[in-house]
Amino acid sequence: MRLVLVGVEGPINLGSVARLAKNFSADELFLVKPVARLDDELAIRFAAHARDFLARAVIVERLEDALRGVDFSACTSAKVGQRSDVLRHPLTPWDFAALATRFRKVAVVFGRESVGLTRDEIALCDVLVSIPANVEYPVLNLSHAVAIILYELYKATRLQESQFRVEPANEELLRKLAQRLECIAEKVVTDQRIQQVKAALRHLLFKSGLTAGEASGIAYFVKRLVKRLGVDECLA
Amino acid sequence: MRLVLVGVEGPINLGSVARLAKNFSADELFLVKPVARLDDELAIRFAAHARDFLARAVIVERLEDALRGVDFSACTSAKVGQRSDVLRHPLTPWDFAALATRFRKVAVVFGRESVGLTRDEIALCDVLVSIPANVEYPVLNLSHAVAIILYELYKATRLQESQFRVEPANEELLRKLAQRLECIAEKVVTDQRIQQVKAALRHLLFKSGLTAGEASGIAYFVKRLVKRLGVDECLA
Repeated sequence: MRLVLVGVEGPINLGSVARLAKNFSADELFLVKPVARLDDELAIRFAAHARDFLARAVIVERLEDALRGVDFSACTSAKVGQRSDVLRHPLTPWDFAALATRFRKVAVVFGRESVGLTRDEIALCDVLVSIPANVEYPVLNLSHAVAIILYELYKATRLQESQFRVEPANEELLRKLAQRLECIAEKVVTDQRIQQVKAALRHLLFKSGLTAGEASGIAYFVKRLVKRLGVDECLA
Repeated sequence: MRLVLVGVEGPINLGSVARLAKNFSADELFLVKPVARLDDELAIRFAAHARDFLARAVIVERLEDALRGVDFSACTSAKVGQRSDVLRHPLTPWDFAALATRFRKVAVVFGRESVGLTRDEIALCDVLVSIPANVEYPVLNLSHAVAIILYELYKATRLQESQFRVEPANEELLRKLAQRLECIAEKVVTDQRIQQVKAALRHLLFKSGLTAGEASGIAYFVKRLVKRLGVDECLA
């Protein structure tokens, strides 16, 4: 994935974008005629632990140069066109990310803080992407727009379920917990609402997507509860 | 939706967060013991057209005060716990956003740039949310984390399909375009691959999710093509 900034003006944005590129595993950073300097003290400060990435940025003269060797390119804009302005008919970030998974080398292009991308620049991209936001103030700061697009691309292309999910609760344990809780319910609810209560407890356990650690916390709680209530038969 | 920052240190982050809150239609901004000042010149500059929102921020002494009156609260952290550390078992931003749609008043809490939220603070929230990112450098700058969480909440709760989607292509027009293109194909492809070509053209038209404006551009192109090829019968 290649990130392209056209005419970036602010050193804080430049540094922030380098950090985001590293946060979300972008491969390359291309700068078309940057106004901000790579060695600006603020850029380096805001790049934080990505100053190596910032230092490796490639500076080119024209957007055409930054799109060379790319299979699929998206320009970005906060400005969405009306019916007849096809050039400004945008994709959402998530639709774009889904499409991007099908290409080997993808570029995303962001424009100047002040005036964005020109129509001629947008015409060089395969698609246009826009971030839906408050119609009364839809214009995001550059680095925040970059954050959202890179996050969607990361979600679609790099996220391994295993990276982020802690171990889920074992199904047998959930089943045992449900039985124990229902047993406890039968001891403490003696009217006709018992069926409702038991169903609610089962739903609670099975819809909550508990992790193994969370389930083991609940299991311990249930055991203590049984002891306290003196209903040891519920541990069977 | 209430956005809560605990001990925010940087005025640029404070201003940026106010802008994001307005970009994504947050209702309130609460600051727990902020280090940065609301009237800092940098904060005001980075709030841009959201300086009114920044000026309305509510300053409180303790996180408990910021969570009063809230139905569902999420703390955020880049640090994800292991199996036994249930306090740090996180939801993804999208799972959190889906849950949040079911509550009237939701708060999201972000910690200090330097050290995040304390365990005691995290314990005050109903759930923990974390943004999956590059395991080698998963720590986002504060305002960029805010951007992503607010964006997911906006997507889940505020996005009206009508706001962002330009008018889709009329189905009849697509059908007519397919017929015309297939007719043209029959004129120019004379071998046994014609069935493949016709199917490919239909898929192209119907899978591309064209807008009305885009479809009308294609329709015009097809008409010119028919004229140029001298196959007027394909306009029937």
